[in-house]
Amino acid sequence: MKIVVHIDNAQEWRDALTQALPNATVVTSDAAEEERLGADYLAVWKAPAHLLKEQTKLKGIINLGAGVDHLLSTPGLPPQVPIVKLRDAGMGDLMADYVLYGVLHFYRSMDRYAVQQASARWQPHNVVEKTDWPVGVLGLGAIGAYVASALQQAGFPVLGWSRSPKTIKGVKCLYGDDGLDTLLPQVKTLVTILPDTAATRHILDAKRLAQLPEGASIINPGRGSLIDEQALLDALGDYHKPGHLRGALLDVFHHEPLPSDNPLWQHSRVMVTPHMAAPTPLSDAIDQVISYLNAFEAGETLPTVNPSQGY
Amino acid sequence: MKIVVHIDNAQEWRDALTQALPNATVVTSDAAEEERLGADYLAVWKAPAHLLKEQTKLKGIINLGAGVDHLLSTPGLPPQVPIVKLRDAGMGDLMADYVLYGVLHFYRSMDRYAVQQASARWQPHNVVEKTDWPVGVLGLGAIGAYVASALQQAGFPVLGWSRSPKTIKGVKCLYGDDGLDTLLPQVKTLVTILPDTAATRHILDAKRLAQLPEGASIINPGRGSLIDEQALLDALGDYHKPGHLRGALLDVFHHEPLPSDNPLWQHSRVMVTPHMAAPTPLSDAIDQVISYLNAFEAGETLPTVNPSQGY
Repeated sequence: MKIVVHIDNAQEWRDALTQALPNATVVTSDAAEEERLGADYLAVWKAPAHLLKEQTKLKGIINLGAGVDHLLSTPGLPPQVPIVKLRDAGMGDLMADYVLYGVLHFYRSMDRYAVQQASARWQPHNVVEKTDWPVGVLGLGAIGAYVASALQQAGFPVLGWSRSPKTIKGVKCLYGDDGLDTLLPQVKTLVTILPDTAATRHILDAKRLAQLPEGASIINPGRGSLIDEQALLDALGDYHKPGHLRGALLDVFHHEPLPSDNPLWQHSRVMVTPHMAAPTPLSDAIDQVISYLNAFEAGETLPTVNPSQGY
Repeated sequence: MKIVVHIDNAQEWRDALTQALPNATVVTSDAAEEERLGADYLAVWKAPAHLLKEQTKLKGIINLGAGVDHLLSTPGLPPQVPIVKLRDAGMGDLMADYVLYGVLHFYRSMDRYAVQQASARWQPHNVVEKTDWPVGVLGLGAIGAYVASALQQAGFPVLGWSRSPKTIKGVKCLYGDDGLDTLLPQVKTLVTILPDTAATRHILDAKRLAQLPEGASIINPGRGSLIDEQALLDALGDYHKPGHLRGALLDVFHHEPLPSDNPLWQHSRVMVTPHMAAPTPLSDAIDQVISYLNAFEAGETLPTVNPSQGY
């Protein structure tokens, strides 16, 4: 069985599929033409027309995403070859739920009630209006923008930040260093969903953390490298000498799994989760592709795309 | 028009009502007796009996909350005076957020991560599809219906239950004893938002709790009387002998404040919050009281409480 893969991270896909299907030949679309020809299956996302035209033995095409509009409009799509598509891995929803949980945790004082419960103390805290609880979202890529919109729809004022200017309905979008200076002092909860790049490493250092208002909280489901962990610990302080930050919900860390002697584990105002906010779609997607390939080979009935319907 | 106000923050209410109704005389229940007597309306939350008994000219009583159990059981309640209660005065959003937080807490295994954190254990858990996490909502009054809709919009299948048949878009509505038998075995998380009446007291007893599936969780922001606390503790079990329920988020209790020696405080799989799920936001509530007063004065038909039903 020969599979040709075309997608941004095709090497990752090739390696994963090769490992899962040791008897298959998996080549990326940038391989030489003689290696690509005669494929049994294409596993593609936004493939160029020549990749479709050059194949003569295809048994099936797997669209590596939920949207098939690009594939169906590509000239040279062989009309009789069955197409299957990946269902939406749902990463945006997973991330938005994780962040909303975290925002509600601080907004509704659930962190305080947990502390009070340990000493059987019954003490309600006021709930301010959501309009008085602005949330900052650093990073407005596909997922960051999705999360920002979800928080806005949940009733929180949202300030978004990215390197270059963006526009998101209902979200006050800021950008650049000046934008970050403007955003940080205004937010009650800060969410970091930036990619790991040289420019974002330790973007939350001691200086930036100090710009947050007294009692602010942090949610990091993005990348561990975004936050200087020691600076965060200093800003949180400890039981005897509380710092100016209220708490943090952290899903990602410089070293994962988080080493058992890392003080974040034991800090009473830090919630540690094991990189579970939005499980990487790759493994889920690869599982889907493998089950499709097995079903094709076994001659099973597959939920194929209907080109005339367009989905 | 004279209004007597009895509630924790009565001064705040008096000032707000005086500002909104400049021709009305608004006094708090701690005013001298001669100032209180001859009121046209009482606006009260957990009023003492003497406040009800001493009035002779009442045109209406406004219950400053959704639960009327306390008022209806107060000796001296004049039988012919119409009673209205605050309906969802922004309480729906507060309640929906509390419940959504609780559902996400169990759905996303945040309870397990908290336990793991105590021993620095890094162990992600799978997230099932939301479609595999049905939530039951007992009680489909204004607030229960609002919460059921919010959960449905958040992506969870919702089964609702009430004494009499109801219809809520997107929610599978069941009713009566048979409906409860049908609902309980199907839900991963059960939410109780029923009023406190003779018919709902201990509606979740040992038999009903046993109908929930293994690993189900409970959220009670309704009334403490709905759940037999000892039966709940038995169904939760303890560290050495876990029962078939996974955990509970409880906001209301038989005795409030929850006595410090109550074992719920110390149970590792119970989250106790101090009756804070849905405090009435003052501005919304005042708007509603004013519209009730205007409707009373205009002789309009009002949605009054039926004392024989208890709500």
